[in-house]
Amino acid sequence: MTDLPQRATSSRLDPYADRYAARTAGMTVSEVRALFAVAARPEVVSLAGGMPNISSLPLDVVGDSIRDLVMTQGPTALQYGGGQGDPKLREQICEVMRLEGIEAHPDDVVVTVGSQQAVDLVTRVFCDPGDVVICEAPSYVGALGVFKGYQCDIVHAEVDASGLIPSALEQAIVSTKASGRKVKFLYTIPNFQNPTGVTMTPQRRTEILEICRRHDILVLEDNPYGLLGFDDEPRPAMRAQDPGVIYLGSFSKTFSPGLRVGWALAPSAIREKLVLAQESATLCPPPFNQMAVSAYLSNHDWQGQIKQMREMYRERRDAMLDALEAYMPASCTWTKPDGGFFVWLTLPAGIDCKAMLPRAVTARVAYVPGTGFFADGFGASSMRISYCYPTPERIREGVRRLAGVIEAEMELLETFGATGPIPGLPIRGAEHPSTNTQ
Amino acid sequence: MTDLPQRATSSRLDPYADRYAARTAGMTVSEVRALFAVAARPEVVSLAGGMPNISSLPLDVVGDSIRDLVMTQGPTALQYGGGQGDPKLREQICEVMRLEGIEAHPDDVVVTVGSQQAVDLVTRVFCDPGDVVICEAPSYVGALGVFKGYQCDIVHAEVDASGLIPSALEQAIVSTKASGRKVKFLYTIPNFQNPTGVTMTPQRRTEILEICRRHDILVLEDNPYGLLGFDDEPRPAMRAQDPGVIYLGSFSKTFSPGLRVGWALAPSAIREKLVLAQESATLCPPPFNQMAVSAYLSNHDWQGQIKQMREMYRERRDAMLDALEAYMPASCTWTKPDGGFFVWLTLPAGIDCKAMLPRAVTARVAYVPGTGFFADGFGASSMRISYCYPTPERIREGVRRLAGVIEAEMELLETFGATGPIPGLPIRGAEHPSTNTQ
Repeated sequence: MTDLPQRATSSRLDPYADRYAARTAGMTVSEVRALFAVAARPEVVSLAGGMPNISSLPLDVVGDSIRDLVMTQGPTALQYGGGQGDPKLREQICEVMRLEGIEAHPDDVVVTVGSQQAVDLVTRVFCDPGDVVICEAPSYVGALGVFKGYQCDIVHAEVDASGLIPSALEQAIVSTKASGRKVKFLYTIPNFQNPTGVTMTPQRRTEILEICRRHDILVLEDNPYGLLGFDDEPRPAMRAQDPGVIYLGSFSKTFSPGLRVGWALAPSAIREKLVLAQESATLCPPPFNQMAVSAYLSNHDWQGQIKQMREMYRERRDAMLDALEAYMPASCTWTKPDGGFFVWLTLPAGIDCKAMLPRAVTARVAYVPGTGFFADGFGASSMRISYCYPTPERIREGVRRLAGVIEAEMELLETFGATGPIPGLPIRGAEHPSTNTQ
Repeated sequence: MTDLPQRATSSRLDPYADRYAARTAGMTVSEVRALFAVAARPEVVSLAGGMPNISSLPLDVVGDSIRDLVMTQGPTALQYGGGQGDPKLREQICEVMRLEGIEAHPDDVVVTVGSQQAVDLVTRVFCDPGDVVICEAPSYVGALGVFKGYQCDIVHAEVDASGLIPSALEQAIVSTKASGRKVKFLYTIPNFQNPTGVTMTPQRRTEILEICRRHDILVLEDNPYGLLGFDDEPRPAMRAQDPGVIYLGSFSKTFSPGLRVGWALAPSAIREKLVLAQESATLCPPPFNQMAVSAYLSNHDWQGQIKQMREMYRERRDAMLDALEAYMPASCTWTKPDGGFFVWLTLPAGIDCKAMLPRAVTARVAYVPGTGFFADGFGASSMRISYCYPTPERIREGVRRLAGVIEAEMELLETFGATGPIPGLPIRGAEHPSTNTQ
């Protein structure tokens, strides 16, 4: 592809600029995308990606199982299917959710094209332009993009090392209602949150649910990493406490993201709407992929496989935390995840992580600047660093390089004053989450 | 699944009714869906479905090729991919489109989850609530559903045996503009249209493009059946004449619908927006499926396979037309498709095909009532009957049964007057398309 002649890709001269829907104005190319192309070079240690490490998957088992699927059930797997998804897979999904204490009926599950599509469909069903979605501060950039794409207003509520702060949620709800706007739902990632890695404590879960019930606000619980905890049994989901919660799950982190199979579990009336939205969006999620996941769950020790993945990620998490401890300047703070893929690193105020990124890439290390995880311009002195993909050795080397870049930046800052934040941007006293001290 | 306890599925008591987005009011369950469950019984000849007949697919070739894909490229196929789609597949898609005279660059192709998702993404990018989409009368029910889901106004322009009527299009544009509304695009299926089976003549294509250029209106050309013509070489696509056309293609009818792989070809600026919309909707279309299609195209004589499919469909088309000729009352008319899956059958005015459907199912034959293919209540005395799935023998038997039901209905009509149309519904003098005489 790179040998093909380059086409004009600039939207500066977009001849269709005055024809798009209003929502399209909210669809913008990430400012750091171009840099990520550079960061993909092998000499750069990328702590930027959120790709699961699927190197331990038994390709022979998967390959044989999919070949059998084609040979024995090809006419069904290769044909259109139902909009709600394969009945057998929906039963198996209920078994998976049972590990987190959820008692659910397969009739209330809708299969989606990754859980990303579930976020899209829930937003499609609930949100008019100007409706408010409350999100953690910071929150998953892909969900923020969906909410913006549906012209929602995003109101943030802060996170600390114990997850979403109940008083911050309450305040966000009260002030939004006082401004005359409708809160459609709370979007939360309670386990090993993207991007902070923090997990909501059991007591917080109960409090958050109680607040949302009292204010009559739906909860959208996004849980792609729930089975990837390092220490304990899986935490009971919020949905396990409250069947009114809309729960989103995914096989992307526990099996394969390339098959794009996720799901939503929702109260029956909402599930009906989600199926209609799914039929409009794709007619049906790919039957082939659903049956491939179903066959994998039937034919393979998938729980053993997940255990193996957890050990691999734990080793990498340890490598990252050890390296942070060893190399980072004392004025930096970071979270200490019990599972999942991510650490949230906060630098001394005055350093702008987006402005620093080109210098980091030059030093052969990449990360995601924090501002993308906020809808309101905060996050400038934070970044997400992930340990899911590189080897422990590369993680240590990446953190070492990053520490060097940060130290140089701090020296510059001491010598010349703040170089980073764009004048006029708000600076919070403390970045989120504000609990980690090192 | 049927043994599981039934959950309440009624939306009559939907506790969330006052929370949904305005667009969700447009998402409704098809009135005839319950009947189609009955129509799925083996004793019923279903002329209702639009499922391709994939029985001739070489399952061993497909199975081996997908197993090889997992074994040799598993770490890529099972991982996240780019939002625009696999570069190699996009090159192959350009080769497929070349059969219809399209010269395109892979950079301008976006892979989608079936071409249904392409309709969704184009509408998402262009249409605000109240914007007008011009559609053929009748048109594909799944596209009408998307347009309604985005709160578009649908304006119909009539079709005859030569396809969309240029003067009808011109009138629809002029009257819409006069009413102060914006026309965002024309949605057209030029080849073997769903639901009528008619094909736009070359002269009409040129005229339609000229009208749209003159009125500065985008053309969305949906072409899932283009390679399934019975007589000639593939017709040159409208996109072949005008690179400003947004063209939608699909592997659902020429390979497998269960993989859900379609695409959009669009001018660069629009393609950029479609990629952003795709990333928001699903992060990426399933890489596994794209590589599976790519491998099939590389490893198999796919053009020979399509030729074999065409022969099969032609035999079934012949069976249906012969049976219509043999059994239908003289006052019925129907289209004579040169390709694709569908015949449009129009009964004498006064017979309501939706009201008649339960009687047809009792007589063990099913079809799709015409009203679903119109956004404006027309189509009551027409129906779509498809020959793609049943065997020629079953098609003949189904048409024979249908003719019996229609004759009984006509007798009732003569004896008691019109039983069908709901009072107050508009009745056009002639149903669309109005050209078929028999």
